[in-house]
Amino acid sequence: MSSLKNDLILKTLRGEQTERTPVWMMRQAGRYLPEYMVLRKKYSFFERCQTPELACEITLQPVDIVGVDAAILFSDILVVPQAMGLEVQMVESKGPILPDPIKTTNDLNRIIVPDVNETLGYVFDAIKLIKQELNNRVPLIGFAGAPWTLLCYMVQGKGSKTFDEAKEFCYTQPALAHQLLQMITDTTIAYLKGQIAAGADTVQIFDSWGGLLSPDDFENISLKYIRQIVAALKDEAPVIVFAKGAWHSLDSMAATGAAGLGIDWCIKPQLARQFAGKNITLQGNFDPARLLGPISEIQKEVKKMMNAFGPGNHIANLGHGILPNVLVSHAKAFVDAVKNHQFEN
Amino acid sequence: MSSLKNDLILKTLRGEQTERTPVWMMRQAGRYLPEYMVLRKKYSFFERCQTPELACEITLQPVDIVGVDAAILFSDILVVPQAMGLEVQMVESKGPILPDPIKTTNDLNRIIVPDVNETLGYVFDAIKLIKQELNNRVPLIGFAGAPWTLLCYMVQGKGSKTFDEAKEFCYTQPALAHQLLQMITDTTIAYLKGQIAAGADTVQIFDSWGGLLSPDDFENISLKYIRQIVAALKDEAPVIVFAKGAWHSLDSMAATGAAGLGIDWCIKPQLARQFAGKNITLQGNFDPARLLGPISEIQKEVKKMMNAFGPGNHIANLGHGILPNVLVSHAKAFVDAVKNHQFEN
Repeated sequence: MSSLKNDLILKTLRGEQTERTPVWMMRQAGRYLPEYMVLRKKYSFFERCQTPELACEITLQPVDIVGVDAAILFSDILVVPQAMGLEVQMVESKGPILPDPIKTTNDLNRIIVPDVNETLGYVFDAIKLIKQELNNRVPLIGFAGAPWTLLCYMVQGKGSKTFDEAKEFCYTQPALAHQLLQMITDTTIAYLKGQIAAGADTVQIFDSWGGLLSPDDFENISLKYIRQIVAALKDEAPVIVFAKGAWHSLDSMAATGAAGLGIDWCIKPQLARQFAGKNITLQGNFDPARLLGPISEIQKEVKKMMNAFGPGNHIANLGHGILPNVLVSHAKAFVDAVKNHQFEN
Repeated sequence: MSSLKNDLILKTLRGEQTERTPVWMMRQAGRYLPEYMVLRKKYSFFERCQTPELACEITLQPVDIVGVDAAILFSDILVVPQAMGLEVQMVESKGPILPDPIKTTNDLNRIIVPDVNETLGYVFDAIKLIKQELNNRVPLIGFAGAPWTLLCYMVQGKGSKTFDEAKEFCYTQPALAHQLLQMITDTTIAYLKGQIAAGADTVQIFDSWGGLLSPDDFENISLKYIRQIVAALKDEAPVIVFAKGAWHSLDSMAATGAAGLGIDWCIKPQLARQFAGKNITLQGNFDPARLLGPISEIQKEVKKMMNAFGPGNHIANLGHGILPNVLVSHAKAFVDAVKNHQFEN
């Protein structure tokens, strides 16, 4: 089917047997790499996202340097709110600021479900270039934020521990909130279809703040929309859903038709498997902070993780994005430990 | 046994039947109360903590204004690191800063296991005064931070989403980390014994950052020390353990001998009951952000929560501290909805 030299991740997502467990790292294209920091000093965040040559170079860095089994597009989940008409500022080391967040019906009238080719064409161009430069070495993962996580930023206007204003918006103006969530969903479906058409081999939906919601709210405010996205895409490419902290809904997430589910380090792999069911591929779940420890400990912990997941139906990854203060040698030790792991019989 | 007019919480912690489910709110003595804000403008944070008359007045406010079934001492978990010799600055609206955090053996030599009567006597004085002013209306809850949560601040030096430096300390210098955890544990045992001797009817251990750890790390870095604290105290007063996010270890926490376990809103009460076992009292688990919604919704959600827990072995509470932007009328609606709840037969 595929002319990829390394299609371990795609095979695993299809539930096929592979010679070893594949591995990549969330945020692998980023701040822990000195080669990335050189570009970060020269170009602003959105210059890096919006210039296909820069996005391509950054996307390929971890493939060359760390040896991961997939590239993931260098971009940001907030390009979608931006394409919908909201101003997004990226303040280095501080995080995103959306100076005019959504609070009322009038605010909602300021945004649109855009033509993604017009507004996000630069992402599709980057993907085409990346695919060309990857030259079939490894697959390319596309991605988008989950509607709830994007609503968090679009309403709160900045990062938050609790996203209390985003929740308040959902609880006090539910009709408006669902209208916004549907607009984000429609944009995201078109955006991810465009990514797949441009060459993304699989796509991941990041619900970074799914774990802030109660199980019932997660169903009503988040999963309902993720379900629509997975349904619209799953026949075009395998979809990975990562709702950080939403362990309580692994069964419902598995039922969406997703090919893979991301899990964080706060659930034991065996229990995640029990909740998610036998067939779906699980992705995770190394504590990113563990990469700050000594290499010998990283190797020991990887061994423990690998044996807990067992062979097959597992893509090794961190349980969240790699931290900026991790040494490249430690990231590489993680990847190598996965690659060299031998399951005992 | 007790001369308390309202001993619903103590009865519930002993597993006895009560005429209704008791209720209080974490951080109930705080920023959402206009009466508190008056004092906050006049006195610095540590003046409020360290002046028994002020701590007493603040502790009593929610009992009078909101009608909760317990008072909880107004203080802060960081008075313990302060008593151990670390400088703690409270920057209003920003959170704590510890300008000289613990990073090395030398840093550890700067701190001590203090005589709590010398360093924290003001807390015991506050408790005596509060008990007198409460005049047996409701019980008084004392509290302390869990050793892991205190280590987070003592090493990171400030709040953090990931407490990556605290984890790095534990992973790279485990012997030092355990030495520090033991020092905090020893101080905390003496501190909570002092609180009970002064009149606290029950004590709660707050492990606000327990949920950042993997299940194995939670056992080794956090629960191991909570277990020591519970063992040292449980014959003197009932102990409530609240490790936010650590749902995976409810069974081990129940086995410590704690009388009650706090749970957050990200686990369904039925599942928490299944994990924690039949006998222990559960405390929680209303999403604090839900108090930002309309009162009619608060009432609906309280009903759902109450029915999910069922009668008995439950102390109604939020799943984390009350948010500063909650209206007093909404807090009161929550408390009243619990008090008025009728279980269907």
